[in-house]
Amino acid sequence: MEFGSFLVSLGTSFVVFVVLMLLFTWLSRKSGNAPIYYPNRILKGLEPWEGTSLTRNPFAWMREALTSSEQDVVNLSGVDTAVHFVFLSTVLGIFACSGLLLLPTLLPLAATDNNLKNTKNGTDTTSKGTFSQLDNLSMANITKKSPRLWAFLGAVYWISLVTYFFLWKAYKHVSTLRAQALMSADVKPEQFAILVRDMPSPPDGQTQKEFIDSYFREIYPETFYRSLVATENSKVNKIWGKLEGYKKKLARAEAILAATNNRPTNKTGLCGLVGKQVDSIEYYTELINESVANLETEQKAVLAEKQQTAAVVFFTTRVAAASAAQSLHCQMVDKWTVTEAPEPRELLWQNLNIKLFSRIIRQYVIYFFVALTILFYMIPIAFVSAITTLKNLQKIIPFIKPIVEITAIRTVLESFLPQIALLVFLAMLPKLLLFLSKAEGIPSQSHAIRAASGKYFYFSVFNVFIGVTLAGTLFNTVKDIAKNPKLDMVINLLATSLPKSATFFLTYVSLKFFIGYGLELSRIIPLIIFHLKKKYVCKTEAEVKEAWYPGDLSYATRVPGDLLILTITFCYSVIAPLILIFGITYFGLGWLVLRNQALKVYVPSYESYGRMWPHIHQRILAALFLFQVVMFGYLGAKTFFYTALVIPLIITSLIFGYVCRQKFYGGFKHTALEVACRELKQSPDLEEIFRAYIPHSLSSHKAEEHEFKGAMSRYQDFNAIGGV
Amino acid sequence: MEFGSFLVSLGTSFVVFVVLMLLFTWLSRKSGNAPIYYPNRILKGLEPWEGTSLTRNPFAWMREALTSSEQDVVNLSGVDTAVHFVFLSTVLGIFACSGLLLLPTLLPLAATDNNLKNTKNGTDTTSKGTFSQLDNLSMANITKKSPRLWAFLGAVYWISLVTYFFLWKAYKHVSTLRAQALMSADVKPEQFAILVRDMPSPPDGQTQKEFIDSYFREIYPETFYRSLVATENSKVNKIWGKLEGYKKKLARAEAILAATNNRPTNKTGLCGLVGKQVDSIEYYTELINESVANLETEQKAVLAEKQQTAAVVFFTTRVAAASAAQSLHCQMVDKWTVTEAPEPRELLWQNLNIKLFSRIIRQYVIYFFVALTILFYMIPIAFVSAITTLKNLQKIIPFIKPIVEITAIRTVLESFLPQIALLVFLAMLPKLLLFLSKAEGIPSQSHAIRAASGKYFYFSVFNVFIGVTLAGTLFNTVKDIAKNPKLDMVINLLATSLPKSATFFLTYVSLKFFIGYGLELSRIIPLIIFHLKKKYVCKTEAEVKEAWYPGDLSYATRVPGDLLILTITFCYSVIAPLILIFGITYFGLGWLVLRNQALKVYVPSYESYGRMWPHIHQRILAALFLFQVVMFGYLGAKTFFYTALVIPLIITSLIFGYVCRQKFYGGFKHTALEVACRELKQSPDLEEIFRAYIPHSLSSHKAEEHEFKGAMSRYQDFNAIGGV
Repeated sequence: MEFGSFLVSLGTSFVVFVVLMLLFTWLSRKSGNAPIYYPNRILKGLEPWEGTSLTRNPFAWMREALTSSEQDVVNLSGVDTAVHFVFLSTVLGIFACSGLLLLPTLLPLAATDNNLKNTKNGTDTTSKGTFSQLDNLSMANITKKSPRLWAFLGAVYWISLVTYFFLWKAYKHVSTLRAQALMSADVKPEQFAILVRDMPSPPDGQTQKEFIDSYFREIYPETFYRSLVATENSKVNKIWGKLEGYKKKLARAEAILAATNNRPTNKTGLCGLVGKQVDSIEYYTELINESVANLETEQKAVLAEKQQTAAVVFFTTRVAAASAAQSLHCQMVDKWTVTEAPEPRELLWQNLNIKLFSRIIRQYVIYFFVALTILFYMIPIAFVSAITTLKNLQKIIPFIKPIVEITAIRTVLESFLPQIALLVFLAMLPKLLLFLSKAEGIPSQSHAIRAASGKYFYFSVFNVFIGVTLAGTLFNTVKDIAKNPKLDMVINLLATSLPKSATFFLTYVSLKFFIGYGLELSRIIPLIIFHLKKKYVCKTEAEVKEAWYPGDLSYATRVPGDLLILTITFCYSVIAPLILIFGITYFGLGWLVLRNQALKVYVPSYESYGRMWPHIHQRILAALFLFQVVMFGYLGAKTFFYTALVIPLIITSLIFGYVCRQKFYGGFKHTALEVACRELKQSPDLEEIFRAYIPHSLSSHKAEEHEFKGAMSRYQDFNAIGGV
Repeated sequence: MEFGSFLVSLGTSFVVFVVLMLLFTWLSRKSGNAPIYYPNRILKGLEPWEGTSLTRNPFAWMREALTSSEQDVVNLSGVDTAVHFVFLSTVLGIFACSGLLLLPTLLPLAATDNNLKNTKNGTDTTSKGTFSQLDNLSMANITKKSPRLWAFLGAVYWISLVTYFFLWKAYKHVSTLRAQALMSADVKPEQFAILVRDMPSPPDGQTQKEFIDSYFREIYPETFYRSLVATENSKVNKIWGKLEGYKKKLARAEAILAATNNRPTNKTGLCGLVGKQVDSIEYYTELINESVANLETEQKAVLAEKQQTAAVVFFTTRVAAASAAQSLHCQMVDKWTVTEAPEPRELLWQNLNIKLFSRIIRQYVIYFFVALTILFYMIPIAFVSAITTLKNLQKIIPFIKPIVEITAIRTVLESFLPQIALLVFLAMLPKLLLFLSKAEGIPSQSHAIRAASGKYFYFSVFNVFIGVTLAGTLFNTVKDIAKNPKLDMVINLLATSLPKSATFFLTYVSLKFFIGYGLELSRIIPLIIFHLKKKYVCKTEAEVKEAWYPGDLSYATRVPGDLLILTITFCYSVIAPLILIFGITYFGLGWLVLRNQALKVYVPSYESYGRMWPHIHQRILAALFLFQVVMFGYLGAKTFFYTALVIPLIITSLIFGYVCRQKFYGGFKHTALEVACRELKQSPDLEEIFRAYIPHSLSSHKAEEHEFKGAMSRYQDFNAIGGV
């Protein structure tokens, strides 16, 4: 790619970003758009613009983001979000510190050497004479065996040490964040409960529920409160879903009646398109009565006959629950397994009944399947990145030639085509990975998301990074390798491919931050959808709310996406130090935009008290490790005599990871007792805690079944809140 | 080795065993020998011959051993001993079941083939024409590619499946044994205590003890009882040791006075040989008074100033202690680490103060050092086993030639020389390994012994088994390998060496069981030492008791020794099925002799509730794994086409090990709460539990310091018992 087209691409992206930011400034001030730009504040019961200035200044949101404190984030969006900001600022810190030293030293060293000129037609660069000005600023321009390589080796050390320092600080900080949240004086149901799975069959004459109660009462005569046994809810959920649907439709029909004074009608057949015409209000009222009766029958059946071998067990104190969640209960380890209870809203009931060994088998089967997926996706991506160069396209589809020959179009196409192809491919995967992760038998949403994020990270590193780097070169050198396959050939291949792909990744990163963050900030698409729905579809308040409800921060794709950028930046940081500027912009802009969105837009769908952090930490370290290995290979390819000095660094990374895991990880896996033993603001209402875990489809019934009859009004309130 | 010399060696061993057994029958009936043959019963307060028949029948002890139940063993020698019998009977079961099928099928198949005759001077056997009759019964006599190899492949499957079955049953059984012992209604101090290490420094103005008390009282306001902080005891131990020595000498002097009516005197200098002559009773009384004063001063100093960062913490219930030992207490995992408390008598106080990361580093350093030791020992053993063939000896030391030419001496020497050399070498190692294991920072004797046993096992498998197998051949083939080193060369080497070494190992095993168990049963050496000491040295009752005190079962060498025999038998079970008979005899005789010794002789020095089992289980499985790999190699060397069918078996072994670990191991690492929550016979005397952990050198003082003043008489009793 020419230097020119790179600058054009960068310029275009920047212009798009500025336009989107101006649009945001303009649109977000209109009060009709408030539910799109301030939904989190609205849902928290705050005034949308409270504390913010209604200025036309397009940078006002930045100031607000910068002045907000971590505590604001925790209050408005929870610990998980705050941890994500620690992630962003840590990476930003690493890149900034690295850039401060690397840019002023390495760039001049590279620019004043002349390896590329000397070996114009040599084997050292595969671009054979078409090298761009950018390459002059990269390590490719350093002569082999040059003493200047000492500086590059030093840079690897500097980046590694900076990373260790920031990671250590961040882990400590996140650990404190988590501890503070867990010792909060507020009552949180999940802190009083544990999840029990793999219960054996009860002895004759006992139900599963009686069995578990007697088992835990014997072990915890004083602190055991009660248990909520899991049930097979698929049928009752279905009925409940239908009932909720009818209720919505009835509300809609009533709203239409109120607005138009005409009694609305509908057809009873498929999608309301065929069948008998009936009066909607009467029809749905009848259906609701029917469903309620059905629901009650089914609820009774579920509780009596469909008890499963898992339960949520409640304790009277937090320490008792935290301690119980960490203790072995049964001499046979595969029975009565316990874990901390996840939040009620993120509990995956359908997975609870899966047995321990079944979970293990599922996990390995899915790992195998994901590995296949990673390999399978490699093929189309390699293919796309090979044909989406314009030259190849012209060969394949000759009739686009006239269009392509217009210089402007040509340049834009040349810059964006491969990247867009890549982005489209990547957009299709996350849902599949989340589905697979849930199929492992994981009991909570947050854990499933962590698992999916992990898979997605490995996917992106293998396919995007290594795939793109090697694919182009592979087309040329696959024959050589086939002739004489050797390991040093592969290292050579990676080493020669890396500098060549640098511009591709520079463009990729800039596209992601300017266009991606522009769209994120301006929320153009949700805005348009919201206004269309509001105008043509929504009739009731609930429907309008559903139309603007913002969703969460979707860590399953956000984290691995950021980690991919991190990996790319790491790996190129010494080879082409310019990428550090792009990395800093990506994480800096990302921090600003996300701060805005976290405070005003997104509503987290669960709280896992920062359990994402060990996951992120480990992958940052993995990226650093990859970087060190790549540099070992590349310095070797430069026939630098002291390349072996990278090896102590690689070992240090492994030890650092081990030490961090030993020191911090336990505190994320379990709740430390010193944290759980803090005083509460008030003695907890255990009945309320218990009810928080009753699934909606069973709630009205369960409450009765457990002899909860008084305080029916409070119970109603609770359900209303629980419905959010 | 000739077949004749093998039979002579076997016969000699057998005669020695019969003589020793007869000696045992004769000696054990003399009442003066009771402290040597029945010390465990005497210490338990039982009559030595109670329930046993004073017959001259030399097989009476076998009948007694066979009729004793597992419960007898648990009562008289503890769970650990019972677990060792499960080990022996499991291996016996595996070999018996294997032998039942293998001996009648494989032996005829091997005997009727004639590979060895056909390839007399070929490359397949390295014995080149000197093959013995034994080789005809081994797999070496099977022609290459013969369909008879199917039977040998089947035998590998049969042995593996039998092993899985017996191991699974045994693990389940031991798990139950452990659970029953832990839920016993008797009060055991270690079940009420946990061990806390890695405490941070206390805040200003608090002692370590106050800090730990306030920390645990906050977390366990109801179940925390008190703590016993570890102290730096080296100086006070020294004073206490001296004091005890003086007391003994005083008692001895008084005994002499009573017996001879002469006041004994001694010299004050080195070893009582030089210096001034003084009256012993006066001299030691004075020294005792001096030491008591010293001890008291030092005790105060220790408690006030030498508190360390570890402690034993006591709880009021067993469930509380079991649960606390499994829970994370501090958000930083490397602080306030907890484990179950070991028994008071096996606590290694000097290790408690070592910090977590220091322990980890020590562990790896020691692993490295042990690996070096294993490699270092390989050299002398290979050397010895090469020169201790008579031919070589004659070359080196020519003057022994005339002795050697006497046929009888020659045969005996030829059979025993290499084996004796090996045994001497092996006797030197265990103490070193135990010392190294303790230096890892392990807090209990039993754990250190497990660690030493593991190291010893790897040592013996690598050095004895692989070393001896390869050493002989190496001398011949080392030149070939040096010329052209390839992997298939190594596999070939192992495969051709294995059958050749079979006779060596047959002799080794038979030597071990006949001579080893003969000496074990007859206790000739302890008997002689005891009688000599009693006659010439001992003056007081305490000294006599010290002279016959039997010691424990010394698992650190017993377990790896048995495991080595197991490994050898496994590996030859299909190649030379005759070895199964020797294996069965070894473990059968071992079971009988040890049963006798466990019930009547040895006194266990700790009780770890069967924690040795997972360790043994894993190593039996490792031996099976090695067997499978060796068979894969050997079948391959026979160019058997379906050799690959061994691979599924190898994978099954790995999965089996994983599943066992998942299902059972947790119950051995921790105390399951359902086990700990059983009712006690009586409410525990917590003060007594606490006092059980006070080190002897601090005991008198500590009791005072902790305001234990009432019930002084009970305290005196306790000390008297604690002194055993």
